[in-house]
Amino acid sequence: MLPSAPDRGSLQLSNLTIGVDLGGTNTRAGLLNENGEILGRGRRTTPLSEGSDAVVKGIADCVRDAAKDACVSLEDLDGVGVGAPGPLDPYEGVIISPENLQCMHGVQLKDKLEVELNVRVRVDNDANMAAYGEQWLGAGRGVDHFLCVTLGTGVGGGWVSEGRLMHGFNGNAAEVGHITVDHNGSRCPCGNYGCLERYASATAMVTWTRTRLAEEQIETILRDQDLTTKAIFDAAEAGDAFALEMFEATGTYLGIGLVSLVNVTNVEMIALAGGLAAAGDLIFEPARRVFMNRGTVGVKEHVRIVEASLGDDAGIFGAARLARE
Amino acid sequence: MLPSAPDRGSLQLSNLTIGVDLGGTNTRAGLLNENGEILGRGRRTTPLSEGSDAVVKGIADCVRDAAKDACVSLEDLDGVGVGAPGPLDPYEGVIISPENLQCMHGVQLKDKLEVELNVRVRVDNDANMAAYGEQWLGAGRGVDHFLCVTLGTGVGGGWVSEGRLMHGFNGNAAEVGHITVDHNGSRCPCGNYGCLERYASATAMVTWTRTRLAEEQIETILRDQDLTTKAIFDAAEAGDAFALEMFEATGTYLGIGLVSLVNVTNVEMIALAGGLAAAGDLIFEPARRVFMNRGTVGVKEHVRIVEASLGDDAGIFGAARLARE
Repeated sequence: MLPSAPDRGSLQLSNLTIGVDLGGTNTRAGLLNENGEILGRGRRTTPLSEGSDAVVKGIADCVRDAAKDACVSLEDLDGVGVGAPGPLDPYEGVIISPENLQCMHGVQLKDKLEVELNVRVRVDNDANMAAYGEQWLGAGRGVDHFLCVTLGTGVGGGWVSEGRLMHGFNGNAAEVGHITVDHNGSRCPCGNYGCLERYASATAMVTWTRTRLAEEQIETILRDQDLTTKAIFDAAEAGDAFALEMFEATGTYLGIGLVSLVNVTNVEMIALAGGLAAAGDLIFEPARRVFMNRGTVGVKEHVRIVEASLGDDAGIFGAARLARE
Repeated sequence: MLPSAPDRGSLQLSNLTIGVDLGGTNTRAGLLNENGEILGRGRRTTPLSEGSDAVVKGIADCVRDAAKDACVSLEDLDGVGVGAPGPLDPYEGVIISPENLQCMHGVQLKDKLEVELNVRVRVDNDANMAAYGEQWLGAGRGVDHFLCVTLGTGVGGGWVSEGRLMHGFNGNAAEVGHITVDHNGSRCPCGNYGCLERYASATAMVTWTRTRLAEEQIETILRDQDLTTKAIFDAAEAGDAFALEMFEATGTYLGIGLVSLVNVTNVEMIALAGGLAAAGDLIFEPARRVFMNRGTVGVKEHVRIVEASLGDDAGIFGAARLARE
């Protein structure tokens, strides 16, 4: 019996798929049955410096590891799904130009993996996969109109409408970090100005805190510390007024962005994921308050803003789900 | 032979439906075959002051007029679709609280019309119906990911993704006029601040022009005129610098809004409808320029921003299409 596998006697062993989460640091895979039970896992370092062939081989090896872990042959799989950093083309399964996977630019990942594994492969955006996983088995279970917003280095998103994952015409739907919050705001690398990502990502909060500390005479325990969201969180928990103010401001901008997003998507639930979401009420309280102040009557009362629940596995669940479509 | 009916010998006479556009002034109906050919029409004044029963009866009479005009019996219809001002519940076919149809608040329009006509009825938002019509037979023909934005009293929208009309969880998707353009902007009746509608509607342009004329020493032929978008348009066409500036500013805000909308919806075409769209390059040129300046590489090059093509009939086409679903 392998540590990650529950009692096989009681398990559904048909409709098996493997979901892969391809990250800049690690490649992780999970073999799931159609009930969403993880029967095997694989994990490898992503060999970025060795070029795209090594990364593709690493994914294939990780898939084989998960299959072996579950004592399942690749021939018994219904498919493999891969969540990878965007931008990418989910229709053709081609990686386009992700910042943290430079060696993979232009790689036809779906085709290469299908040759390598002899299994049907689907490739999609990692933020989409996290949302699809959360909507299947996490915070969004049973919620047909669902948005998952990840507050990390950037602000990413994935979106399910009527139970279907939304892609748009070329796979760039739900780029929720790039809606305008302030049209006079600073330029974003995406080309737009005053994007939500410039105000409500973990990176934005740290940068903004650093700028204010450099420019203003503020009394705070954050001065002379290594600035991270964790440090700002700890300071806020300890009652530091400036740290509390930074969370209040970040949550306020987040709430402003969520109003726009709901006015377009009309989702009934937004799950927040990523580092900042783990700050709990410090970020949720201002975001919910602003959402209720600015949202539309008849809609806002019905929208739940909650924390995502699957953690790092969300993308694996989503990719395994996609693999059977 | 009736004036609105083409040669019946060559026409498809099965799968007939009637689309109705319920407005605050007129109720208009068209009987269509599945090729989108209009075989008969009805038009009546909407009897707002006589209460909801009269309005419902007016719709039913208008449907009968269109059927009679096409020499078709109600029993031969596959359904009736009604586009009505929102907010409404498209799932139940209930009018909620439209500003310009106060007597209809809370009316179960679908159920009442089905009793009155003994035909299956669908009710949906008028902006959705215009978009659905344009995507079927107008500017968006053959475009699977399509947004129609109406620039009139407000800024409304309807949206088709993968060929499907988007509703969201309670029928409030694509409220495109209520995305934030400036989070510090003025309050919108919807509850939000700095909404696109406050900058890019016909109403907003007239209000803004009036305010600037009152507050600033501006030399313009618009001074002492009745201010309408038509007057501003005529002045701009005559080369009036201030009128040109107002179109430039309005188009700029519109472009800023369209960038946010495409970053969420990833549509490949936006059709602009309503009074301001008729101003042509005066509004399209700045909107397209800003869109190309702020949009995302890999997306913006593929997005067409065009004028809607069906005029006042768009809603009738859309409602007739909905009626067969």
